[in-house]
Amino acid sequence: MNKNELLALLQPDIEQINATMRTEISQCGNELLGKIVEYALFNGGKRIRPVLTVLSARLCVFTSMPEGLAQEDELQPPVNLYRLASIFEFLHGASLLHDDVIDKAGMRRGKPSANKVWDNTHVILAGDYLHTSAMTMAGTIGNETILTLIGTATAAMIRAEFQQMQTVEERNLSEENYFSILRGKTGCLISAACEVGACFAKGNEEQRLALRSYGDALGLAFQVVDDLLDYQGDSGKTGKAVGNDFVEGKITLPLIHALKKGEHEKSDQIIGLLKDDASVRADNIGLAKAFIEEYGGFDYARQGAEALVEAAIEALSIFPDCQARQILIGLAQYVLTRQK
Amino acid sequence: MNKNELLALLQPDIEQINATMRTEISQCGNELLGKIVEYALFNGGKRIRPVLTVLSARLCVFTSMPEGLAQEDELQPPVNLYRLASIFEFLHGASLLHDDVIDKAGMRRGKPSANKVWDNTHVILAGDYLHTSAMTMAGTIGNETILTLIGTATAAMIRAEFQQMQTVEERNLSEENYFSILRGKTGCLISAACEVGACFAKGNEEQRLALRSYGDALGLAFQVVDDLLDYQGDSGKTGKAVGNDFVEGKITLPLIHALKKGEHEKSDQIIGLLKDDASVRADNIGLAKAFIEEYGGFDYARQGAEALVEAAIEALSIFPDCQARQILIGLAQYVLTRQK
Repeated sequence: MNKNELLALLQPDIEQINATMRTEISQCGNELLGKIVEYALFNGGKRIRPVLTVLSARLCVFTSMPEGLAQEDELQPPVNLYRLASIFEFLHGASLLHDDVIDKAGMRRGKPSANKVWDNTHVILAGDYLHTSAMTMAGTIGNETILTLIGTATAAMIRAEFQQMQTVEERNLSEENYFSILRGKTGCLISAACEVGACFAKGNEEQRLALRSYGDALGLAFQVVDDLLDYQGDSGKTGKAVGNDFVEGKITLPLIHALKKGEHEKSDQIIGLLKDDASVRADNIGLAKAFIEEYGGFDYARQGAEALVEAAIEALSIFPDCQARQILIGLAQYVLTRQK
Repeated sequence: MNKNELLALLQPDIEQINATMRTEISQCGNELLGKIVEYALFNGGKRIRPVLTVLSARLCVFTSMPEGLAQEDELQPPVNLYRLASIFEFLHGASLLHDDVIDKAGMRRGKPSANKVWDNTHVILAGDYLHTSAMTMAGTIGNETILTLIGTATAAMIRAEFQQMQTVEERNLSEENYFSILRGKTGCLISAACEVGACFAKGNEEQRLALRSYGDALGLAFQVVDDLLDYQGDSGKTGKAVGNDFVEGKITLPLIHALKKGEHEKSDQIIGLLKDDASVRADNIGLAKAFIEEYGGFDYARQGAEALVEAAIEALSIFPDCQARQILIGLAQYVLTRQK
């Protein structure tokens, strides 16, 4: 399944998700608040999280249907599933709004970021509004289990942000620490998006666990590829400067591996750069890339991403073959080929 | 009941609430996050919101007991009630943390504010953490109704912040707008604290409504007195400069009333000041105070607060006389005599 086929299959759900989000936003009760929230949510996001919720639910429903009772494409998800799915986009939007304030960002996806169009006050409050709405929806459209899954994932995101700040400070170079941060920052919310879909569709324990594992591996693979693209991507496509992570002192998998394998002298030189100013690192991106290449850091990370995608697909093997499963497999495979 | 008697009666519950909050915080999973959250929550707050939840619950339980079955002081609230009550302190703490970032605050209650001790990044995230924890607890220790009450109150707070910013911009001088902002910013969370206590104790519809009305009137009275203290308080006791609201361009009840009653020429002079720079207003606080005094703005606001306190107490008349009711009445009366 190539990217265009995937997009075509996802389009109807994405449209429903967008329509649902617009309805929710229109009920926020303050015009300016609605404008900011809409600006944050409709900025070209791929809706990957809510789509995972819808597909996971559909997969569990299809699996539980007596054979031949319904064609899969007749399984119209109830409106509430789209509302439930949009929670993940709300939470994602809330964290992007707060990130923009934190990073004093100027641009987001090629447009001025919300904190530039309005100000920190409005943007922090709009983030809080999305957060509150999402949590209320989680416990009312969903249930106690769903609320707990989402609350746990959100708390894990915040802890991972703290862990990442400490990592930069302590220059912690372990692969374990790296994956722990990835899981908190991205993996938890993605695996929760999948598991919540399964919960909503009354999937059994095995199905919930399988979809959770799928989401976990997918989220990690996505981030490892992100970290590879940071060094190897085409900045015209990614929209980010090459080597940005290194300049910021962020130590990602390719570098972690190379530092472990590299000769002492060369490794020490790179560690010296990590202790230096960002401007010095900016002048030495070429050196860092050559070092990572020499000690197989890029290959190692690429293989790691491939193994994660394989694990994601393997987790789906308990489900019968159907379109929802094919799309989920297609999404996992796409992670390895994406260039932005 | 004087202030010291009130405090002595509240002390055991406050200690339980504090112990419960410390236990929750200790489970946050990141040392620095725990430190920031503790700094924000244990800064001398009066715990008025969680105390209202506990007292409201106790009042409903006592009311439903067959006569003579239990002494009121034997009615030990279950641990979960204290956890539920602490949600309101968590939400309050979250909003103070975000407010400090928004206001670029330097001090809070005589100590450096959290954003000065750490930085905006850590403080925004710590606020988000408190928010998430509170909402998760609302739906798990509580139930769907309790989560909705809390979610609705939090969303109302955010809308009121937006409304207030627009009010300053538009110099909206209506009493209706003033009360609408007060209700959103303070009243909603206080009335939710009361109603949630009633819900948890399985109070009936009439009891829930009565406690909600009590909280609403109490919250409004508290804020009206706050606005009076801003002009008339002893800054040594309040910790705030006299006339601070006027300098910031905030139009509160005493001024709204005076502007309505004042002679055109004098009112226009004050409205002119409201359009001017804060520094010009700072030089004219005396003029504003004299204007409000002349046209009865302070008396009007004081009478308004008294009427609200009376309404709060009246709302409790459906409950039998007992200690919880006496304390709630005492709290309402204290609002009128407080000097900080």
